[in-house]
Amino acid sequence: MTDAEPKNPIRNFKLTIEYDGQAYAGWQRQIDQPTIQGTLEHAIATMAAQSITLAGSGRTDAGVHALGQVASFKCRTRLTAHIFLKGLNALLPRDIVVRHCETVPSRFHARFDATRKLYRYCILNDPAPKAIGRQYAWHIRAPLNTRAMRMACQAITGQHDFSAFTGSGSQPHSTVRTILSAQINRASGNMIHFEVLGEGFLKHMVRNLVGTLVEIGQGRRTADDMTRILVSRDRGQAGITAPAQGLFLVQVDYDD
Amino acid sequence: MTDAEPKNPIRNFKLTIEYDGQAYAGWQRQIDQPTIQGTLEHAIATMAAQSITLAGSGRTDAGVHALGQVASFKCRTRLTAHIFLKGLNALLPRDIVVRHCETVPSRFHARFDATRKLYRYCILNDPAPKAIGRQYAWHIRAPLNTRAMRMACQAITGQHDFSAFTGSGSQPHSTVRTILSAQINRASGNMIHFEVLGEGFLKHMVRNLVGTLVEIGQGRRTADDMTRILVSRDRGQAGITAPAQGLFLVQVDYDD
Repeated sequence: MTDAEPKNPIRNFKLTIEYDGQAYAGWQRQIDQPTIQGTLEHAIATMAAQSITLAGSGRTDAGVHALGQVASFKCRTRLTAHIFLKGLNALLPRDIVVRHCETVPSRFHARFDATRKLYRYCILNDPAPKAIGRQYAWHIRAPLNTRAMRMACQAITGQHDFSAFTGSGSQPHSTVRTILSAQINRASGNMIHFEVLGEGFLKHMVRNLVGTLVEIGQGRRTADDMTRILVSRDRGQAGITAPAQGLFLVQVDYDD
Repeated sequence: MTDAEPKNPIRNFKLTIEYDGQAYAGWQRQIDQPTIQGTLEHAIATMAAQSITLAGSGRTDAGVHALGQVASFKCRTRLTAHIFLKGLNALLPRDIVVRHCETVPSRFHARFDATRKLYRYCILNDPAPKAIGRQYAWHIRAPLNTRAMRMACQAITGQHDFSAFTGSGSQPHSTVRTILSAQINRASGNMIHFEVLGEGFLKHMVRNLVGTLVEIGQGRRTADDMTRILVSRDRGQAGITAPAQGLFLVQVDYDD
């Protein structure tokens, strides 16, 4: 008889993930629909030969994309981060890619430790639609007044009660969130980018802000209306929810 | 009885078309497969209530994209270019978009009158794959030596017999073509663009040039090999045919 094999060590892994959300019912695992979390957990479990739970920095809605979602999981394994990176990208469908994988101290948790998130919303502002990249932007035909949109961005920067921009069905403990920066930038090819950096976001908050910003850009509301809507705390006052396909979770920050 | 209605005038229309080639068996109409030409002809015929023939500036292969393909067609109609633009984009699937539509003199023909074409080939040169935009680039993991690739570009500029870069099964009258400019540029996000402007191209010529350029960038061939391959006129000497998904027909030029 040989000695019992030494147990594998418990390792904590941090993944940085890019995904094209088109084919998925969002981040969160569901029994009967394809999700990003479910697809990743299945691939990790296959490699690690044990079931694992993947903690994302937060959920993304059905159809929302990510350039830098962060998630973490623990498992008993001797597999290195480099092996996981290579193996997962070989196992995963092509619309989900692990960009980085590293081992982190056991106390690290992708959701609880996230300090800031950067989202980008892409608007194609052009009389004609586009075929290339149509999956990654909201098409608005009439020219948007980006000056008015920029003024409205100033109103949402800082700490506010964002009740008026919360998705229905969500009941968080607090609807107060801090927005560190909110910008409207013109990019190449008639694209307009809304980039918003915050310590946290409510359900549908970015898409609801974008829906309102676009109505301001169209002249259907004034930049001052943004403050009025915020103060009202009434979802009925804000604009429509912008479509998921224009939204990207760009980056999640952690303090060292 | 009323007088016979006056016949509609014959009008000649020029279309500038963007398409995502993923779902199509190329430009040229085929009986049993979806093609760009076939899809456009069907939509135009529906609007014009008559069958038409659409002349493209040239064919693109299965899976190749276009930002500015040009095509022309004649029909008896009172519909204006503006009506065609709006109506076609309403009828067409979302992966084919008419960006511009104008009436042109009856002598204009999109293929015979084309004087120059600009192609772009996109290479993602990154250790990790990408999920967003994966449909629009060739992924090469190991770092490419763009300096060597640029030197090789000089060899193909000018008038040459491009037999060594012709796709099999094609038997053009002449395999001599004139390349006005060929450039390798680094773009954002670890993308490398090969842009080539020429008076005309042989079947698979751009993709065969790219396959060879990548082997030069990988150090598997030297920049001098490009001249040697050109002179050999032997397809067996050149590199592989780069995948279709990285190739874009960017622009077609016409003299006034």
